[in-house]
Amino acid sequence: MRIVRIQHEGAARWGQLDDQTVHLLTGLGGQTTGETVPLDATALLAPAEPSKIVCVGRNYLDHIRELGNDTGDLPKEPGIFLKGPNTLAEPGGTVDRPDWTENFHFEGELALVIGTRARHVTPDTALAHVAGYTCGLDLTARDRQKTDLQWFRAKAADRFCPLGPWLETEFDPADVRVMTRVNGETKQDGRTAHMIFDVPAILAYVTRFVTLEPGDVVLTGTPEGVGPLQSGDTVEVEVEGIGVLSTRIG
Amino acid sequence: MRIVRIQHEGAARWGQLDDQTVHLLTGLGGQTTGETVPLDATALLAPAEPSKIVCVGRNYLDHIRELGNDTGDLPKEPGIFLKGPNTLAEPGGTVDRPDWTENFHFEGELALVIGTRARHVTPDTALAHVAGYTCGLDLTARDRQKTDLQWFRAKAADRFCPLGPWLETEFDPADVRVMTRVNGETKQDGRTAHMIFDVPAILAYVTRFVTLEPGDVVLTGTPEGVGPLQSGDTVEVEVEGIGVLSTRIG
Repeated sequence: MRIVRIQHEGAARWGQLDDQTVHLLTGLGGQTTGETVPLDATALLAPAEPSKIVCVGRNYLDHIRELGNDTGDLPKEPGIFLKGPNTLAEPGGTVDRPDWTENFHFEGELALVIGTRARHVTPDTALAHVAGYTCGLDLTARDRQKTDLQWFRAKAADRFCPLGPWLETEFDPADVRVMTRVNGETKQDGRTAHMIFDVPAILAYVTRFVTLEPGDVVLTGTPEGVGPLQSGDTVEVEVEGIGVLSTRIG
Repeated sequence: MRIVRIQHEGAARWGQLDDQTVHLLTGLGGQTTGETVPLDATALLAPAEPSKIVCVGRNYLDHIRELGNDTGDLPKEPGIFLKGPNTLAEPGGTVDRPDWTENFHFEGELALVIGTRARHVTPDTALAHVAGYTCGLDLTARDRQKTDLQWFRAKAADRFCPLGPWLETEFDPADVRVMTRVNGETKQDGRTAHMIFDVPAILAYVTRFVTLEPGDVVLTGTPEGVGPLQSGDTVEVEVEGIGVLSTRIG
């Protein structure tokens, strides 16, 4: 089932997508209200309402190598960083290239949105806390990762996290293809089976320290092939079984 | 004027504190509703409702030196990191010492809460976006700052940000005393005049990249004197002109 978040009569609403019709819901994981809206009469929003966006860095070995971060040992624990809700951008939207980075990178990722509060979950039970899966674009000012104390503007500047187009609820994250195309050319083509820490392991690790709330987002890391973006580029992140998140760079 | 956030009839409410009486407000920066609650009949909450908590690291030279991070040059730009809303803890509360750090540190700080959306503000106009000022305790797993990819669990674990007891609206942050006591013994005793980046400069820098929303929190950095906490300790952060934030370590 596909769950969308749309702008409807001045408010953000969750809905269930049935072909070209959105059946409005009382909330994420809620009941249908009986109201329907044609898909083409609405604007899709990022399908999340996060208190935080938790991201995994260096979760694919080939990506660790391409950035020169391979120390010979695999990470023993996931490397986690945060983005704020200010980073969300809608599917099909435009994100302006900032003037304070010389190296503005795409990182296509499998993303998930939490459905029920998750604290100290085990890998066995972790996936039951997921409302659905979607495509995420972890925009990154690569040069500012190196110059700054922490990855703040490098990762968490406004609109640095396009997300969508919808949540897919019937989805097994264990082994799906994750692709990123820039202007139609494939740049990243990985499989989630190559993650160092799989989705259950990520959720078990994160929730030892941080309680995840309904609507929170987790980005699961990017495969190799990251690279720079220029104004005018169109980036597409496609996750097999979900769909395509398209973003224009302004 | 003192602005409090209290638990009242099952909901979190903003109020204006007049001696021992809380006059409930329609919201942060809102009007009084006519309802009053005796202060001693309520529980104070952290006086914020943040979408993000933006923190400045290494903003006092003596603190940079005590951690061995002095490279001879002052930072040219503020070093920023994020905590999520999961880190908030109420004034007078208890925070359990985590079992996954050997070096659990206090960092007493001047904190502020945003009143009106702030984006690309200038130092001249920045303070007009502040709803009020309060005391913040930036709890830190010092050892995990070094071992982890980014300061995630080191800074952003659940309840790692006690805040309060209230917002003081009539306050000039330029030169006030910031003290931290552990079990009554003074450990930190600095002045905000010794910040490398003052409050207007911090807000101007942050809002170049990240839009601050009403209810968001900014922690402005800690003076020298940080140190470890043990179970049973009581930490008090006192900011001159505001009051005392007390936290027990469980």
